[in-house]
Amino acid sequence: MGVELTLSSLRDLSEGAAVLGTGGGGDPYVGRLLVEQQLRAGRTIRVIDVDELPDDALVLPCALMGAPTVFWEKLPGPEGITTAMRTLEAHLGRKAAATMPIECGGFNSMIPLLLGAETDLPVVDADGMGRAFPELQMETFAVMGVSGSPMSIASDHGDAGIINAVDNKRMERLARAMTVQMGGSAYICDYPMDAATVRRTAVPRTLTLARRIGETLRMARDQHHNPFEALTAMLADTIYSHGLVLFRGKVIDIDRRTVDGFARGKVRLAAMEDPDDTMEISFQNEHLVARRNGELAAIVPDLICTLNSETGSPVTTEALSFGQRLTVYAISTPAIMRTPEALDCFGPPGFGLSELYIPVEELASGRA
Amino acid sequence: MGVELTLSSLRDLSEGAAVLGTGGGGDPYVGRLLVEQQLRAGRTIRVIDVDELPDDALVLPCALMGAPTVFWEKLPGPEGITTAMRTLEAHLGRKAAATMPIECGGFNSMIPLLLGAETDLPVVDADGMGRAFPELQMETFAVMGVSGSPMSIASDHGDAGIINAVDNKRMERLARAMTVQMGGSAYICDYPMDAATVRRTAVPRTLTLARRIGETLRMARDQHHNPFEALTAMLADTIYSHGLVLFRGKVIDIDRRTVDGFARGKVRLAAMEDPDDTMEISFQNEHLVARRNGELAAIVPDLICTLNSETGSPVTTEALSFGQRLTVYAISTPAIMRTPEALDCFGPPGFGLSELYIPVEELASGRA
Repeated sequence: MGVELTLSSLRDLSEGAAVLGTGGGGDPYVGRLLVEQQLRAGRTIRVIDVDELPDDALVLPCALMGAPTVFWEKLPGPEGITTAMRTLEAHLGRKAAATMPIECGGFNSMIPLLLGAETDLPVVDADGMGRAFPELQMETFAVMGVSGSPMSIASDHGDAGIINAVDNKRMERLARAMTVQMGGSAYICDYPMDAATVRRTAVPRTLTLARRIGETLRMARDQHHNPFEALTAMLADTIYSHGLVLFRGKVIDIDRRTVDGFARGKVRLAAMEDPDDTMEISFQNEHLVARRNGELAAIVPDLICTLNSETGSPVTTEALSFGQRLTVYAISTPAIMRTPEALDCFGPPGFGLSELYIPVEELASGRA
Repeated sequence: MGVELTLSSLRDLSEGAAVLGTGGGGDPYVGRLLVEQQLRAGRTIRVIDVDELPDDALVLPCALMGAPTVFWEKLPGPEGITTAMRTLEAHLGRKAAATMPIECGGFNSMIPLLLGAETDLPVVDADGMGRAFPELQMETFAVMGVSGSPMSIASDHGDAGIINAVDNKRMERLARAMTVQMGGSAYICDYPMDAATVRRTAVPRTLTLARRIGETLRMARDQHHNPFEALTAMLADTIYSHGLVLFRGKVIDIDRRTVDGFARGKVRLAAMEDPDDTMEISFQNEHLVARRNGELAAIVPDLICTLNSETGSPVTTEALSFGQRLTVYAISTPAIMRTPEALDCFGPPGFGLSELYIPVEELASGRA
């Protein structure tokens, strides 16, 4: 059942997940090393399509919650995420048939693979964000009425808990408070659901998308092709249909603070040929809005990616530095992420932004 | 089985619990009104001795966690504490045979009575603090190796959770963080144990003690006797053997701040006859240390109570005000609360105090 993950597809997946992290989500690098370790130890990881599961199969999505900066200092292990899953299984009185990412972008693409290796459960090729978002209620699952509760939470120290919140926003707040007390990061399983609900509410085949993005960038580098053109060509036949270069320039200013457990700030780029031509990107963990000379160029939930101008490699907000040559590359989100309910949850209002959402491809054609 | 709680014994119990609150624990007044409401509605509350239960009967202690100041603004109801109990029962897969206080001092003397009225479960006449303390690991249960986990926590909004921490201090931190997110107060059931363990680890008959303290003060007022002499005579035949007047004076200074969810501060009293003769009491929710002219007069876990000099009525730290006439009255704690392990947990080191513990009756006889 499913496709066995190889070392080379893992590397592609990891780089693609970093692109889908849109500047946040945590660099998957450390997570990738942990998954590599499992593969080298002879464990197998199977990635399956949700259609391979019967309707009533229990799927337990999983993730690491907390500040990405902490993941680097406190290496996550497979024990914590296994404890989280066993805790939720015990609470539900049912065994999981599969796990899946709640967030395919960034570090959290790796956590279900780690759990799959440890427990021999297949990993469903889908997620609830189609990218990275900073909060637990920002899920297509939630938008379509799935309750995140009961969720489980576990620490590296062996602590575990169950949260049964009245809504997904309250669940986020309660879990966030536990995460802080657990040392800034914690393992979670939330949105327990059957395979039929996954089929109805998840963004499909996002692990495959991440792998293909990574593969495209690797091949473009190997063959000395333009990585951005290759990416745009590849995306055209996916549900993320538009890939667009928004800007090329160098970093001239970074304002980055850690506020309420989030990395918030702005980065400003100036074009190489014309220093008066600038782009400013605001972020809360992930990039939220890009403005070129004050005019809207892209806005959440469309993906705003900061990529190395030479190689196409993704650069997270932690790694931004003065003078870097970056290409700001936008990817349009699939229709399931652009419904009025979805935009309300993780579009501009979800982040307290007053702008209206305009699809990135419309903004681009308006300028053209 | 047990003794049915009457309206008049409830009032005595409530006043005695406020004395055992040693300045903190939250004024039981609001809780008493809620319990009265239950009695008037025809519900019965049975207080039983733990010896009335078979060894393997499951006892679920309960409490309201959070800042006492919040209880006044957000009236607790029976639903929240019932949710907490049902959540823990479901997690354990067992029904409770009884509830009991984890803290007989202050507001938390009332919560198990409320749960008993709502669920018809008897309330065991014992607790784990023998007074009031600010944190969940400060329990004779914990000192004697009982795990506070798994514990349940519930909000007024219907949120509920289970915490399974590796130790009781970590449980306190995780539950405190949840409590803050739940609006500053939350209902908990922790230290689930069988009746045999209650017999071995609890401070016995503390609800009876609270009732007798209240009764003694009420009768002294009615009969125009000195309330402090009456209290000392009554305590002599209990395991809290010594009751001592440490000081009489008026409040000349109060320093009170809310820090990390605790009411911390100092109150200073001067003797009526000699303004140079002063007593200073430091508190963290509850009174911790009393010094007379710089010399130690009493220290935690012995009880330092601030009582109205006329009536003997307890005055909580929130109610302290300039010019009040107060009698500082100390009560010695029972032997179970004075073992080296107990002192380590809720004696001076448990509160970061550098003083050594000296029993209050020794300090008094040293001065005499």
